[in-house]
Amino acid sequence: MSPRLPLSDIVQNLPTSVPFVGPETLERRHGRPLQVRIGANESVFGVSPVAAAAMSDTINKLWMYNDPEAYELKKALAAHHGIAAQRLHVGAGIDEILGDVVRIFANPGDRVVTSLGSYPTFNYHVHGYGAALVEVAYVDDHTHLAGLAQAAHDADARMVYLANPDNPMGTWHNGADVAGLLAELPEDCMLILDEAYADFAPSAAIAPMEIADPRLIRTRTFSKAHGMAGARIGYAMAHEQVVAALNKVCNQFGVNRLAQVGALASLGDTGFIANVVQQVEGGRREYALLAKDLGLGHIDSATNFLNFDLGSGERARTALAGLLARDVFIRMPGKPPGDRCIRVTVGTPSQRATFADAFRATLATLPT
Amino acid sequence: MSPRLPLSDIVQNLPTSVPFVGPETLERRHGRPLQVRIGANESVFGVSPVAAAAMSDTINKLWMYNDPEAYELKKALAAHHGIAAQRLHVGAGIDEILGDVVRIFANPGDRVVTSLGSYPTFNYHVHGYGAALVEVAYVDDHTHLAGLAQAAHDADARMVYLANPDNPMGTWHNGADVAGLLAELPEDCMLILDEAYADFAPSAAIAPMEIADPRLIRTRTFSKAHGMAGARIGYAMAHEQVVAALNKVCNQFGVNRLAQVGALASLGDTGFIANVVQQVEGGRREYALLAKDLGLGHIDSATNFLNFDLGSGERARTALAGLLARDVFIRMPGKPPGDRCIRVTVGTPSQRATFADAFRATLATLPT
Repeated sequence: MSPRLPLSDIVQNLPTSVPFVGPETLERRHGRPLQVRIGANESVFGVSPVAAAAMSDTINKLWMYNDPEAYELKKALAAHHGIAAQRLHVGAGIDEILGDVVRIFANPGDRVVTSLGSYPTFNYHVHGYGAALVEVAYVDDHTHLAGLAQAAHDADARMVYLANPDNPMGTWHNGADVAGLLAELPEDCMLILDEAYADFAPSAAIAPMEIADPRLIRTRTFSKAHGMAGARIGYAMAHEQVVAALNKVCNQFGVNRLAQVGALASLGDTGFIANVVQQVEGGRREYALLAKDLGLGHIDSATNFLNFDLGSGERARTALAGLLARDVFIRMPGKPPGDRCIRVTVGTPSQRATFADAFRATLATLPT
Repeated sequence: MSPRLPLSDIVQNLPTSVPFVGPETLERRHGRPLQVRIGANESVFGVSPVAAAAMSDTINKLWMYNDPEAYELKKALAAHHGIAAQRLHVGAGIDEILGDVVRIFANPGDRVVTSLGSYPTFNYHVHGYGAALVEVAYVDDHTHLAGLAQAAHDADARMVYLANPDNPMGTWHNGADVAGLLAELPEDCMLILDEAYADFAPSAAIAPMEIADPRLIRTRTFSKAHGMAGARIGYAMAHEQVVAALNKVCNQFGVNRLAQVGALASLGDTGFIANVVQQVEGGRREYALLAKDLGLGHIDSATNFLNFDLGSGERARTALAGLLARDVFIRMPGKPPGDRCIRVTVGTPSQRATFADAFRATLATLPT
């Protein structure tokens, strides 16, 4: 019999859910290792050798707590983006920051707007703080900017979440249009602009860095182009009052020392990052050609992944299962109409070849 | 002018406070490096070479997100403690876990009991979730078990926090007495038993591992004896329903890959840990002799630090400032009567010698 625990009102009513099942969990269920891991938009091109060396050299300093102010990293990021260090908040990945952002703005019962089928971890935090989600359907596989603004007004929303470029679809809007969304939001509504994939995007997709609106919070990460997903480090750029509020609730010593040192070094290794971005572009082109060759559509992407269009949710789910049976790990958009696609991270050339073979074999088994 | 941000009701009313000023911040204020860093109870004896090698070997896998289930580490911890893996929750240090524990049990306005002058980070989380602290004075520099139980009843408290061995005092109770506290608590009141310093404590100070009471949550860390403070990894042992509740709100991919790999390796390097514990015991004895030599009292400790008794808060604060002026970083208990002491982490033999010289010189400047 379950004990009666004095859980808080919010947690009492919270369903058990995890935003993502990790690849290691899949491997344990699967009973054998996955051969190609291209499902979580990790950077198969790895971490900068400069960053790797910096982290390796820091292991002997790991007995020391980290600098909770992330002073050196913030200084470098401030110079990199041309903003004041007081406008930066460093966290243990965008995931942690999103949780803290929801926490500082949303009261239980408040409404929060996002796109239907967008980042599950954001939704997880919204539910976790007892707020209510309002979901706006994609239009032509793009986030619906006008719809998000309208929903924010209709629901008297506390915040809107927008990933640009978008995950899981890979599509993007021009930065000017994102700025336009911000202008259309209610006066007391924050815009969480998740730019996890900014490094891969055309510059036109990036909203102007000069936007001074205190309602804008942008998030960035070292998990994607910088190849440091396992290190857990990301940051927010926001009004300094927002940064101050985050600092009232965040896990103060939460960003580990190696991640801070590695991120600082990686930020300086611009040649490495440029090369990763170039390889990703090549991989996306190859995937687009593969789609054409297989008689499938695809969705143009400004990220390190590409969606292959299988035509229906059922076919996409079957394809995903077929790839997993062939030891290839991918994921797919969770909600219609995006769930007609499978989302494939750009792999190395040899991983892409393995994926292409497995995909071809899988497709051969699908009913036409 | 400050913008009007739509902050949540709780955060709106939250004062700006940080539980601890980090040594790096002190160095920046100080204008030069600290020569001896023995203020944060970090392990100056460093990390196990086995763990260091394991982490170094994992840097090339850092592009992958970590296993959110920390499966391998939980398996090893389960074997280590002789408990089921379902009773383990791994987090980014005890700090993160304490925040999540407060979150899953405390509604805004709920009362939470702790010792007056106990761990500030726990208090930070209690305030951060809008709960109210009830603080029970130490008795003879020991946490007051009967007082904590009484306060829990009087305040209809949702939880009680107890560090055993205690920080900042270093004192401890027998495990049987801790079990006795649990038995005295209200039926719907959780006991958060923070055992961060368990590795340094006599076995009698550890409450029986067999306690099945679902109200008991024990926390442990790799930040102390394991020398991995900068890696951010700790764990909770609790009823599996508590673990399930934590898993509904925690930062799912929050514990970085290097920390997981390093902790697993360090757990296996029992010889290294035993040696650290032995060196710490030797250092505590040396500090006690130093106190006697200087004509000061000290407080017996079951941790990796020792309190020197300066007789008054004013003298202790002056001594702390004098040590900092001599580039020695220590901390001190924040509340009377503990604030008559300075709290000194066990350093290496050479650090202890430097500290002894600086302390002697500082004392010579204090009014008698």
